[in-house]
Amino acid sequence: LSSKKGFPPPVVRTDSNMEAGEGKTDFIDDASGATPTEEMNGAGNLMDFLDEPFPDVGTYEDFHTIDWLREKSRDTDRHRKITSKSKESLWELIKSLLDAWSGWVVMLLIGLLSGTLAGVIDLAVDWMTDLKEGVCLSAFWYSHEQCCWTSNETTFDDRDKCPQWQKWAELMTGHAEGAGAYVLNYFLYVLWALLFSFLAVSLVRVFAPYACGSGIPEIKTILSGFIIRGYLGKWTLLIKTVTLVLAVSSGLSLGKEGPLVHVACCCGNLFCSLFSKYSKNEGKRREVLSAAAAAGVSVAFGAPIGGVLFSLEEVSYYFPLKTLWRSFFAALVAAFTLRSINPFGNSRLVLFYVEYHTPWYMAELVPFILLGVFGGLWGTLFIRANIAWCRRRKTTQLGKYPVLEVIAVTGITAVLAFPNPYTRRSTSELISELFNDCGALESSQLCDYINNPNMSRPVDDIPDRPAGPGVYNALWQLALALIFKIVITIFTFGMKIPSGLFIPSMAVGAIAGRIVGIAVEQMAYHHHDWIIFKNWCRPGADCVTPGLYAMVGAAACLGGVTRMTVSLVVIMFELTGGLEYIVPLMAAAVTSKWVADAFGKEGIYESHIQLNGYPYLDVRDEFTHRTLATDVMRPRRNDPPLAVLTQDSTTVEDVEALIKDTDYNGFPVVVSRESERLIGFVQRRDLTLAIKNARQKQDGVVSSSVVYFTEDAPQLPASNPQPLKLRRILNLSPFTVTDHTPMETVVDIFRKLGLRQCLVTRSGRLLGIITKKDVLRHMAQMMNQDPESIMFN
Amino acid sequence: LSSKKGFPPPVVRTDSNMEAGEGKTDFIDDASGATPTEEMNGAGNLMDFLDEPFPDVGTYEDFHTIDWLREKSRDTDRHRKITSKSKESLWELIKSLLDAWSGWVVMLLIGLLSGTLAGVIDLAVDWMTDLKEGVCLSAFWYSHEQCCWTSNETTFDDRDKCPQWQKWAELMTGHAEGAGAYVLNYFLYVLWALLFSFLAVSLVRVFAPYACGSGIPEIKTILSGFIIRGYLGKWTLLIKTVTLVLAVSSGLSLGKEGPLVHVACCCGNLFCSLFSKYSKNEGKRREVLSAAAAAGVSVAFGAPIGGVLFSLEEVSYYFPLKTLWRSFFAALVAAFTLRSINPFGNSRLVLFYVEYHTPWYMAELVPFILLGVFGGLWGTLFIRANIAWCRRRKTTQLGKYPVLEVIAVTGITAVLAFPNPYTRRSTSELISELFNDCGALESSQLCDYINNPNMSRPVDDIPDRPAGPGVYNALWQLALALIFKIVITIFTFGMKIPSGLFIPSMAVGAIAGRIVGIAVEQMAYHHHDWIIFKNWCRPGADCVTPGLYAMVGAAACLGGVTRMTVSLVVIMFELTGGLEYIVPLMAAAVTSKWVADAFGKEGIYESHIQLNGYPYLDVRDEFTHRTLATDVMRPRRNDPPLAVLTQDSTTVEDVEALIKDTDYNGFPVVVSRESERLIGFVQRRDLTLAIKNARQKQDGVVSSSVVYFTEDAPQLPASNPQPLKLRRILNLSPFTVTDHTPMETVVDIFRKLGLRQCLVTRSGRLLGIITKKDVLRHMAQMMNQDPESIMFN
Repeated sequence: LSSKKGFPPPVVRTDSNMEAGEGKTDFIDDASGATPTEEMNGAGNLMDFLDEPFPDVGTYEDFHTIDWLREKSRDTDRHRKITSKSKESLWELIKSLLDAWSGWVVMLLIGLLSGTLAGVIDLAVDWMTDLKEGVCLSAFWYSHEQCCWTSNETTFDDRDKCPQWQKWAELMTGHAEGAGAYVLNYFLYVLWALLFSFLAVSLVRVFAPYACGSGIPEIKTILSGFIIRGYLGKWTLLIKTVTLVLAVSSGLSLGKEGPLVHVACCCGNLFCSLFSKYSKNEGKRREVLSAAAAAGVSVAFGAPIGGVLFSLEEVSYYFPLKTLWRSFFAALVAAFTLRSINPFGNSRLVLFYVEYHTPWYMAELVPFILLGVFGGLWGTLFIRANIAWCRRRKTTQLGKYPVLEVIAVTGITAVLAFPNPYTRRSTSELISELFNDCGALESSQLCDYINNPNMSRPVDDIPDRPAGPGVYNALWQLALALIFKIVITIFTFGMKIPSGLFIPSMAVGAIAGRIVGIAVEQMAYHHHDWIIFKNWCRPGADCVTPGLYAMVGAAACLGGVTRMTVSLVVIMFELTGGLEYIVPLMAAAVTSKWVADAFGKEGIYESHIQLNGYPYLDVRDEFTHRTLATDVMRPRRNDPPLAVLTQDSTTVEDVEALIKDTDYNGFPVVVSRESERLIGFVQRRDLTLAIKNARQKQDGVVSSSVVYFTEDAPQLPASNPQPLKLRRILNLSPFTVTDHTPMETVVDIFRKLGLRQCLVTRSGRLLGIITKKDVLRHMAQMMNQDPESIMFN
Repeated sequence: LSSKKGFPPPVVRTDSNMEAGEGKTDFIDDASGATPTEEMNGAGNLMDFLDEPFPDVGTYEDFHTIDWLREKSRDTDRHRKITSKSKESLWELIKSLLDAWSGWVVMLLIGLLSGTLAGVIDLAVDWMTDLKEGVCLSAFWYSHEQCCWTSNETTFDDRDKCPQWQKWAELMTGHAEGAGAYVLNYFLYVLWALLFSFLAVSLVRVFAPYACGSGIPEIKTILSGFIIRGYLGKWTLLIKTVTLVLAVSSGLSLGKEGPLVHVACCCGNLFCSLFSKYSKNEGKRREVLSAAAAAGVSVAFGAPIGGVLFSLEEVSYYFPLKTLWRSFFAALVAAFTLRSINPFGNSRLVLFYVEYHTPWYMAELVPFILLGVFGGLWGTLFIRANIAWCRRRKTTQLGKYPVLEVIAVTGITAVLAFPNPYTRRSTSELISELFNDCGALESSQLCDYINNPNMSRPVDDIPDRPAGPGVYNALWQLALALIFKIVITIFTFGMKIPSGLFIPSMAVGAIAGRIVGIAVEQMAYHHHDWIIFKNWCRPGADCVTPGLYAMVGAAACLGGVTRMTVSLVVIMFELTGGLEYIVPLMAAAVTSKWVADAFGKEGIYESHIQLNGYPYLDVRDEFTHRTLATDVMRPRRNDPPLAVLTQDSTTVEDVEALIKDTDYNGFPVVVSRESERLIGFVQRRDLTLAIKNARQKQDGVVSSSVVYFTEDAPQLPASNPQPLKLRRILNLSPFTVTDHTPMETVVDIFRKLGLRQCLVTRSGRLLGIITKKDVLRHMAQMMNQDPESIMFN
């Protein structure tokens, strides 16, 4: 998949491939002649000009769909060859063992590289985010935290203001406080943000247009069997890694989680090229990519099991058990590599490590479910608004100025974000603070509670206290931050820079959750006697953990946007490390999914896939309509008849004319035009190559030579031109269904077997053809007609 | 699936169903005419005698295979009907909503019931295990631990000997010590064991023969689409629950984990019958059962995520994403129900809760990998020996005396187990002790280290110490226990009582692991200066945790026997609750699997499936041979031609003769005997019913009436007998492949689409038929020919 020539193609072709295929002429556009039986049928009767396979046999064109069955067959053939050779000599045996182990080696390499890249990205983002505010005098490459790490100050608050770390104003003017310093800091903050984002968008534009966005919609499409050349190439890897750091550091409302999945998949693709087993087989390659996606999520959150389930639930299309096991291995290696780099400086694997000290109570399920409803509504709102905005970008002048757009959005973000302490810092820090329980040593504004002077202070388990002015102040700022994040994220996701959605969604949920949490806490404190509180919250007890509400809210919003379920809960479980809080998380996640599903089945990734018109056959869509194969197949009633070849009456000239006049990817071969009984399917590419070859190398093949697809060409009188025997390139086992087959079965077959096309017959007579694109188009039509029918399943 | 008549059939039919189908006559034995399009094709031209569907249409016979595609079609039809009706009235809308939610309700019920049953089983086992040794005077229904819970003794050791708890000898003779008391206790221990196991085997024999064994092989087979009536019935549920308690309490070398999966699946089946959506659709029912299996493992170990992955990896066949999410829900509900019952009295969800205080070091990977090798070897040895013994049981006189066998094995087990304190107690207690780290307060013999008198004693993090005499004593006893467990487990698993394999396998591994762990620990203590220890073990540090070795060993042995991978590691991860120890566990699990796979691909469950001859098409077997569909299809070269019907020239008489002479489950319908072009497939059962119906109700249908499968019967002269139109029961979309299709593709199609049979054509002409049994038989043949070729993949 990687682009061989130094640079990938400079044009982003994300425009509707599906609609482009609407014209009549391409009705077999997506069809190919799978030739899994080539060797079996041809064994022993290799024709002289076919001694070795055509150079490009078995590859696919860009923006085409692969044939899973054929890839699988090819791999089995390869495997058979290696196995039978392995008995010949010790060297071959060693080669076969190496081949068997290559999968594990690739996994190990993916884990190591993606863990390392994630660590480097984390370190760089940390440093550059802080660079917007100031610089470390002792070593400029230290982030704020690293700079003050060795400082002697004892309290957290003092350590935060250690003398080695200087804000820009202080460094330039010598004054740390005052309006002038504030304005200068403000100005430099915006300037740095603009610089970072400008660099990011320029690099993407110039070097790797595919490096933009989150990458997950495209990876889903690629894993389902589509070819997008260069999308996972070396340049994309390099540029995406660099621009991801820039984009996150610029303070835009985006995260690094989705792009990390893309980066990990690029690593996977890179290592595939080391082994012909993977580089030459698009099916096997996708098994590796599925595992790489798991490694990506694993390092994004420090949640290896969650990563594997994410790959299984959200990204992958074909996920056999072997891949499950290997994904797990890759995810673990990646997680441990990241931990040994230790970018957060706390030996913790997870991004947001939390520990709560109090259990939750049944009555709290009500606010949790309300947070779920909020998450579902936010998910729906976000998807609709974002898709509408992205459609506008595609269709209007807006799309022509991507650099300007990024600069403008960054400018607005930075200007609005600086005054509010909760938006000024990086979004992951914000989430981390919102998730945290207020311990005794916490100095954050959110923990500014009024302490009972008589209270002895244990480190944990502090009873509920009345909120102080800091908390009320924080609530206002959080409310403003919430509105800001909701609006700005809609415009940010989809710009031409790497941008993940997990962190902004979680931030929205965490802010809402924390606000609800504090409200419930204060209610419980001030109204101990209300019936709902009476049973579980006696005075002086620690009943409500606002941090847990933040976590539940984050899960709800993330679930609403992505429609993840199990993987979401498992990722959250790995963050907290205890089964204790699974029920609240699950209640919120499931409510959020139901609420969001009520307004539309598709998550943000599926919506973007649809927007870009990728040929993606979703495993989750249930096709429940009563149509039959005959309603979908081409040719339609008024179309010209199907372009077919006959097994023993077509001349070379006829074939060449057919190839010239049509652009179908393959042609069915029938016994004769009268009987139309199907005998096989031949691929356009193979046909072209075979005729070219024969014309050059085989004496006596002229335009009037008859092309034979039968087993033996008849003995012709010497006067007739030499016949051309092409059974070798004929696929004798094309996939067929009858015209009465219900479309739900056809969809199932396409999905489960990963077909490109399927021929339609009635009583053995060929009637037409159905390609994957026909199926997708039909499904889209039916869904639009009657959307209610798929609401519940 | 549940047996309707009070008692299930008294004969266990686990003998080879596959071999029984070897004869020529049954070559379409497994074929059925799937009629998913019935309604579509028949809409509007319902024949008078077919106004309502035949009573038994859509059900399957016992020991037959279901057709997944057909079940799916039927469910889509049902769903379509409900959706279109839901617009008619409010009541219908409510009904449709209830239908949409019924899946979740079933999951909730399964979770609640299986959690409750698991809790009850745990409590009962605890009590009855202790009953073998003594009784609680304050309340006889208290177990030893509960009895002494409220006692005033301060140390663990004293509390263990609290006065309320009396051993039998003390109670009867008044003497707690001495040879006489020992002999009396010994005698009563054996007697109780014999009583329990006799009760267990008798109950199984008399009331529910299907309640024996672990149940997982059969559940795997059922989930793959086989029908075993009564296997998941109410009686099986009741008897299995009761006898499981008895069998585990009797002290036999067996566990409750596998049977708990069976119990949970029985619960699932029970609740399926509440909703016609599940009770009338074998495909949907299996989705529920997959989730129930997850709930079973979830309560067995207290590991909900591990349970879901176990169901996905080990048990399930068809596991769509919807099932993943629902399984997770069921598993969580079950786990929380169990926790609120709190059978272990420690508020812990997990069976073996452990917490280690020291990390592991790189060099320790060597012993961990050695434990993996041991696990693999034990797995291979166990599977081979156990299968050989079970085969002997099936084929010799031994199988005729199941009660005697159980009594004999129990007698030997009890007699040999009593003298050794590590085998006398219940196996889960043993594992729990072996997993535990030696804290400062531990009183176990295994923690009898020589303390440095100068040492201040912190509660955790005790440095490595020299082993005391107690440890050396324990080592000998453990070594004897290891040999005993290895031998006796081989004879125990497969007897006619409920018996799980997880706990005995884990015990073997835990004993071996602990022994290795103590050996490494003592080596590290006494040889601090060796190069391998120098780098990570300074004197006075706590370097080696023998408990961790026990856990790694347990994982290795369990992996060797079951070939679980991800689910195994995740279950172990949930037990320890930290990512810290995943790498050791994974190293051991993967080594064990590789070692065991080198000697044979199949785990214990697949081996038992093969032994019993269930028609199970394993998703994991890769078919890599070069055979074609034509090599497998029937009729074979010298067989009589395929029994077919023609669309418009067969008389009622002919059809009746064909039904009488053959016992195929269905017949292909062709245009005419000359052209043999396939038009459809008709099911034997439907044909019989239709003709019977017509003969009774339709005037003019006589033996010489012609049967028409065409759309319109021609207008015949009045003198001819009335024709019989049967297009209504014809499946117009039978699945076909060409004779050149490679068998690997055919196997893939059978596996992924869940077919029962597939017709073979060449250029539209019908050649033969391949059934699931043909595929299985062919695969078995090819595997035996050339087993090396599947060793590596």
